[in-house]
Amino acid sequence: MHRSNDHSIDRSITAGADFLQLDPGQAPAGGLADWLARRLREAIGDGRLPVGSRLPATRVLAADLRVSRGVVTDAYRRLGEEGRIAGLGRGGTVVVDQFAPEAVPPTPPPAAQPPAARSTAARPGGTRPGPARPGPARDTTPAPASPFDGAPATTVFDSLRTAPARIDLTPGVPDLAAFPRAAWLRAERAVLRDLAAPDFGYGDPRGTPALRRAVADWLARNRGIRADPEEILVVAGAAQALALVGEVLRADGLDVVAVEDPGSLGTRQHLGHRITATPPVPVDAEGIRVDSLRAVGARAVLLTPAHQFPTGVVLGGARRRELLQWAADGGLVIEDDYDAEHRYDRPPVPALRGVLPEQVLYLGSVSKLLAPALRTGWVLAPTRYRNALVDAKRLSDLGNAALPQLVLAHLMESGALERHLRLQRTRHRRRRDATTAAVAAHLPGAAVHGAAAGLHLMLTFPDGLPCTDTELAAAALAHGVKVHPLSWHARLPHPPGLVLGYAAGTPGEIEEGIAVLGRLLREAGPPLQG
Amino acid sequence: MHRSNDHSIDRSITAGADFLQLDPGQAPAGGLADWLARRLREAIGDGRLPVGSRLPATRVLAADLRVSRGVVTDAYRRLGEEGRIAGLGRGGTVVVDQFAPEAVPPTPPPAAQPPAARSTAARPGGTRPGPARPGPARDTTPAPASPFDGAPATTVFDSLRTAPARIDLTPGVPDLAAFPRAAWLRAERAVLRDLAAPDFGYGDPRGTPALRRAVADWLARNRGIRADPEEILVVAGAAQALALVGEVLRADGLDVVAVEDPGSLGTRQHLGHRITATPPVPVDAEGIRVDSLRAVGARAVLLTPAHQFPTGVVLGGARRRELLQWAADGGLVIEDDYDAEHRYDRPPVPALRGVLPEQVLYLGSVSKLLAPALRTGWVLAPTRYRNALVDAKRLSDLGNAALPQLVLAHLMESGALERHLRLQRTRHRRRRDATTAAVAAHLPGAAVHGAAAGLHLMLTFPDGLPCTDTELAAAALAHGVKVHPLSWHARLPHPPGLVLGYAAGTPGEIEEGIAVLGRLLREAGPPLQG
Repeated sequence: MHRSNDHSIDRSITAGADFLQLDPGQAPAGGLADWLARRLREAIGDGRLPVGSRLPATRVLAADLRVSRGVVTDAYRRLGEEGRIAGLGRGGTVVVDQFAPEAVPPTPPPAAQPPAARSTAARPGGTRPGPARPGPARDTTPAPASPFDGAPATTVFDSLRTAPARIDLTPGVPDLAAFPRAAWLRAERAVLRDLAAPDFGYGDPRGTPALRRAVADWLARNRGIRADPEEILVVAGAAQALALVGEVLRADGLDVVAVEDPGSLGTRQHLGHRITATPPVPVDAEGIRVDSLRAVGARAVLLTPAHQFPTGVVLGGARRRELLQWAADGGLVIEDDYDAEHRYDRPPVPALRGVLPEQVLYLGSVSKLLAPALRTGWVLAPTRYRNALVDAKRLSDLGNAALPQLVLAHLMESGALERHLRLQRTRHRRRRDATTAAVAAHLPGAAVHGAAAGLHLMLTFPDGLPCTDTELAAAALAHGVKVHPLSWHARLPHPPGLVLGYAAGTPGEIEEGIAVLGRLLREAGPPLQG
Repeated sequence: MHRSNDHSIDRSITAGADFLQLDPGQAPAGGLADWLARRLREAIGDGRLPVGSRLPATRVLAADLRVSRGVVTDAYRRLGEEGRIAGLGRGGTVVVDQFAPEAVPPTPPPAAQPPAARSTAARPGGTRPGPARPGPARDTTPAPASPFDGAPATTVFDSLRTAPARIDLTPGVPDLAAFPRAAWLRAERAVLRDLAAPDFGYGDPRGTPALRRAVADWLARNRGIRADPEEILVVAGAAQALALVGEVLRADGLDVVAVEDPGSLGTRQHLGHRITATPPVPVDAEGIRVDSLRAVGARAVLLTPAHQFPTGVVLGGARRRELLQWAADGGLVIEDDYDAEHRYDRPPVPALRGVLPEQVLYLGSVSKLLAPALRTGWVLAPTRYRNALVDAKRLSDLGNAALPQLVLAHLMESGALERHLRLQRTRHRRRRDATTAAVAAHLPGAAVHGAAAGLHLMLTFPDGLPCTDTELAAAALAHGVKVHPLSWHARLPHPPGLVLGYAAGTPGEIEEGIAVLGRLLREAGPPLQG
């Protein structure tokens, strides 16, 4: 972003054959893909193709070089497997790591050494990527699916998600400094005092009766859902819920689940690990486009009706009726109610689950209520999936640990969690207001979306940006400020944008972080389009 | 066991066509399997085939009835899917539920109602089976694999495992009353005091650095394993470890893992859920038969070398060398080190992992050290599987919850866990001694195995029993005493036997429970064989 006198902006859009001085005539016979991969590797390594720059489409580069498209695809595949580049669906193919090691050519493994299973989250050595390097750590090995087919780019997302930053405006976490430590410890003391010895043994895989009761009460009070505690399955957060749901749906022959677009990349990854396809369905100002959903033809859809991630749209009344009609016609709605309790200006909309329980599979968690580190959530499934989900949970880990469940139940039943949430709402509203004020001051070209609820908001730049939003996020990270580019959460065409979580930062930090974004944009010059 | 004047004992071995007055001439044309299933259902329902009785082999019954074997197999399959009977491998096919509902014939589902995914652990309604009914609850739906191919009989195991009993001599749990509640709470207070806010967020899927360090230290001190904390993956107990390992091995093309026989049914279930086959390898007085392992031809084996479950055999020196040679030749050993720390008369044998780290995938947990309800364990994998396991864990649940990990790390590093273990060893030894004394007094026909270590011992009855061991366990449960029949943990031919956990009961309870077993056997009359 500070290279105002070079070609970085152009390059970032399409680093073509000319710019890279690629001449296939230099390639050894029969080794074109090898040669191209080597040249691209060099260009990434010496900074000609910096992190965040977009590679040309395979078709375009193949035409430029007058080679077959397979040569380019093969070279990209290798660099992808090395963790150097990643496909972001229609966001194109982007450089994500300047220093990834070259993949060792595969050799037939000796009998004693089966080849390493493919991996995407290799971060041994505890060396999380530093703030200046949003790409994956050096030892990252390839993503499970080809990075060029629109599948989630696990490496990229995961490394950005875990990269530390001075000012963390990542969406998806509540104010962690406000975790009610004293209340938790008091509840734990009460639980340990009252617990019967057998409760330390192997328990019900569905969860402790106390927590299932507390969750049922919570859902009735807060989400308009009437549930029998016996229907509730306690799980290790929404991530596990999605893994189990994917497993069960797939076993039931349902292996395509449509998802919102834009929509959470992490959610899509967890579900997509177990099923075959997650086709995108566009979201507009009223929420998911049910006409498009019908056109996609999937029998199930995963969505966030109370506060769409990342747009923040609340599913409109007409759209809601249309969706319920789709469900009543046989569709399965997977309702990810991830932050519905955080609503500032009016009460949260009731969950779809309350309306059509046999067509809505409901997921909730305490990750946004209390802390992601608790890894606790719940699933309410239609009757027909309930037993299979309990089985899947049991075969996965025999059930959540008992103590934290009981402590949480105590906090829910004593009213401590609702008190905490009320305090948090006030604090989050202040931070939300600080965010919108700072955006107005420092990012005059940005439109704010979804600020009425939740713990994040989305910015788009209707007049365009001087670079991709991924580049902007990478540059911000290099300056100690962490945000998500909208591109990470979108596969369909979309304006450039950012997703900003404001719950975990103080108003001062938020203002400072957004000022950094504004400064970067001013220094980068005029937008590329619009 | 109290039906001394009827034919129950004979029946329990083979309820043949004559006894059941089966006449295929009564069957409608083309509906032989239907007819046979109906007649067997009636016989189970009216008590002619009580829970625990063994059905004839399909071959034998087909010959008796002069029908094709497919007719019998088909009828058994239906009853199995209803949860009425279950295949226990070479233990035969056994009645497990008198009152299971008849399966509704499959009909094409309307679009709005996909068929229920198949399920094995249906226990909605919170109605755990009562002590008098060791079979599965009524609403139990079918096991995932055909129950007649030697696959685990999930329903049976799970219901017995979760059935409550006045005196619980189930193997696999430590003294739960001794859980160090005060030390846990103190450690939790310290953790909550010192924790940084970001530690409440999404963490490293491998586990918190503090626990990985503590586990590495623990393994060095107690198990002769030198491990870098970076190698350690924290998981939700051995159950999740096996699920993740199965997933990763299968993705690597390794979908047959040999297991010890006898060997833990639960362990086999968790692994078998992810891979294709778990062929049995016999165990003798020196441990697993490596010659048989070679003959089976599997590339991996799951075993419990420090204290074989359930026989209690410690892998002998020569056998250990033989096994390590098999591993060095390219085999993968999955070492389930489930209770190695509990050894009374000499120090525990070092783990195989310490000798051949690149051929041994090691699993440990705190389920037997502290409590199963903590759902905490660890995996040390050969380098080639490490990244894939981290991925699998991340995609399964993003990592264990942070707080319990940190509390446990505190207990391990402060020495509190080792103090607890020393106290427990003394107490467990006393209980072990009470058990062997009670067996000598009340079960003169029983041979005791594996009493030198661990938290359970195995009894066999070399002169036979007056019934199957499953029947004996069911009868004991009806009298409030819970033990595992050896048959649950064995698929190869074996003498009748019981597996008794003694850690969780007081010496008085243990004595009383074993006295009940003795009384049942005396009342049942002479053994059937021997």
